[in-house]
Amino acid sequence: VKTVNAHSGAAELGPYRHYMQKEIFEQPRAIADTLEGVVGIVPELFGDGAHRVFKEIDSVLILACGTSYYSGCTAKYWLESIAGIPTQVEVASEYRYRTSVPNPRTLVVTITQSGETADTLAALRHAQSQGMQQTLTICNVATSAMVRECKLAYVTRAGVEIGVASTKAFTTQLAGLFLLTLALAQSRGKLTDADEAAHLKAMRHLPAALQAVLALEPQIISWAEDFAKMENALFLGRGLHFPIAQEGALKLKEITYIHAEAYAAGELKHGPLALVTSAMPVVTVAPNDSLLEKLKSNMQEVRARGGVLYVLADADTRIASGEGIHVIRMPENYGDLSPLLHVVPLQLLAYHTALARGTDVDKPRNLAKSVTVE
Amino acid sequence: VKTVNAHSGAAELGPYRHYMQKEIFEQPRAIADTLEGVVGIVPELFGDGAHRVFKEIDSVLILACGTSYYSGCTAKYWLESIAGIPTQVEVASEYRYRTSVPNPRTLVVTITQSGETADTLAALRHAQSQGMQQTLTICNVATSAMVRECKLAYVTRAGVEIGVASTKAFTTQLAGLFLLTLALAQSRGKLTDADEAAHLKAMRHLPAALQAVLALEPQIISWAEDFAKMENALFLGRGLHFPIAQEGALKLKEITYIHAEAYAAGELKHGPLALVTSAMPVVTVAPNDSLLEKLKSNMQEVRARGGVLYVLADADTRIASGEGIHVIRMPENYGDLSPLLHVVPLQLLAYHTALARGTDVDKPRNLAKSVTVE
Repeated sequence: VKTVNAHSGAAELGPYRHYMQKEIFEQPRAIADTLEGVVGIVPELFGDGAHRVFKEIDSVLILACGTSYYSGCTAKYWLESIAGIPTQVEVASEYRYRTSVPNPRTLVVTITQSGETADTLAALRHAQSQGMQQTLTICNVATSAMVRECKLAYVTRAGVEIGVASTKAFTTQLAGLFLLTLALAQSRGKLTDADEAAHLKAMRHLPAALQAVLALEPQIISWAEDFAKMENALFLGRGLHFPIAQEGALKLKEITYIHAEAYAAGELKHGPLALVTSAMPVVTVAPNDSLLEKLKSNMQEVRARGGVLYVLADADTRIASGEGIHVIRMPENYGDLSPLLHVVPLQLLAYHTALARGTDVDKPRNLAKSVTVE
Repeated sequence: VKTVNAHSGAAELGPYRHYMQKEIFEQPRAIADTLEGVVGIVPELFGDGAHRVFKEIDSVLILACGTSYYSGCTAKYWLESIAGIPTQVEVASEYRYRTSVPNPRTLVVTITQSGETADTLAALRHAQSQGMQQTLTICNVATSAMVRECKLAYVTRAGVEIGVASTKAFTTQLAGLFLLTLALAQSRGKLTDADEAAHLKAMRHLPAALQAVLALEPQIISWAEDFAKMENALFLGRGLHFPIAQEGALKLKEITYIHAEAYAAGELKHGPLALVTSAMPVVTVAPNDSLLEKLKSNMQEVRARGGVLYVLADADTRIASGEGIHVIRMPENYGDLSPLLHVVPLQLLAYHTALARGTDVDKPRNLAKSVTVE
């Protein structure tokens, strides 16, 4: 386990080879900073007037691009299951150009690291022009256009993120979105004091839990040696962890140029199973034992062609490594907050695979850090 | 243009080499059969009592898997823009296992060719168990479990589909979903007599319009010669045509084993642009000129690495073929119904690429026609 001494905002590389590596290892501190000062769940965490806004809304519409879109997709599961509030998540560039059905009682939530993402800002303004005035952003830059233009905000404290492939911005967004879930649950009478205390305790333990996950690095490096030889990969997840599979695939795409694609696990047999061979490993994120049994039976059909499973399993699964199946077990099952932990080994997998392939980790070809043009 | 004499239900190959080829070319007839007897938009197209159900609902939830999921995603755009009814589309295997927020005033719409898809049936029953009793299916088999278990149904008349990669089932689903959109628009006072007449006229012209698109086959064969040498491809679409890009990528995956993946066009620069090289062609579906200008400027960054665009353009775009850009122009711009036409060249592209690669078109490895197990 590497110890992070620098403040999460520091722009110096310190002992690290790359900013992305530094930013991955800064996540315990970034999460601690983002949650600093949160002693209880109150609407005012999101700004003055949040109490009234939260009482007025009947649904949530999340608008975002890229990695931020996947944090929004994770939040949909939280918002519907914990706060009981109907939630839609839409790619900002899609929403802004189509005719949708505006609902003035919807809370429009934008997610953007920089607060300057052109499509997300345009989507916000489109929603406002349709009469949707209840707006909130989860954003990493307090002085950004997005924070100025939204009524409410939770400013994450990931610090400056320099690597083009977002890591600590993503996990701190998830922390902010989980707080929003709890605040909306409370506002709707769905959060008991005991629930609140339990969730806060789990959140406070996140930095230590993240450190334990970062300690899986040697096992991930061994996977990365396999992946460095691949040009394609499938990532599977279900429920809360489907967006994490999507984010893991995106990380691999961005910095290793391996064509990684994510599917909801149940969709595998509706098409992508045809792609599976020894050259197309299948990463599965956080499956429980019953899903794993189904996946294993799907995969048995392709074992003859050399299909190999890489399983990022929960602590309480019984699955073991064996012929054609590699298992890394997480240190603990983290319940609702599990996505914040499961994404970390996938970030490390992308990073170490990129190292092995010799690609430019911090400045992948063709990509810019903040997409401030359309 | 090939002329189809067989009835769309016929299971003989006739003059065709493969069932998939036969089924692609049967689409004009399958659409005509599916729309036969539709002389006007009335709720009873969907069964007795549809009038009352349509008055009671305030939103739509579409549940489906695989190709049927993409027809549902297309319908979301129609339902929100034409009928003004809020619509969610969810992968059946995801919906059935998560805690969502049930709304008894939602019309639950399932889409399945066979009517026996295990996850979709389970998702229907899950919705019913949550108190959602307004159910409707778009299904190709009148005697199926799905038709029996739903209150309302539109039975498409694609006839027997034997190729594992669905083609005519998809386009007839779209026809049924468009009728549903018009019926819901009418029920909500959003369909004038003039609108109704214009939409019906456009629908009746679909078989002829499909024949004109099938006549693009020689141009598609020339693209297929390029694609046969590839192992990866990106498909881009926007709005109504994003699900068509997804369906095009799925077809290519299923029968050619090329790793094709679709993105909403605006997401290209949020990650997948890093993958683009001469070995990763980019197919764009139905872009208008302004989107094409943006895409071309994105692509200019990767021209040095040999990135090549394959553009399936509308009739009224001005874009021309040139260095690194191959254009096939559609015979006519078909407005709202455009997805039914744009998917056909993508079906042909998959088919001819598979032929050139020598894969088993009708029985792709690892896949079953109807996924009746979980």
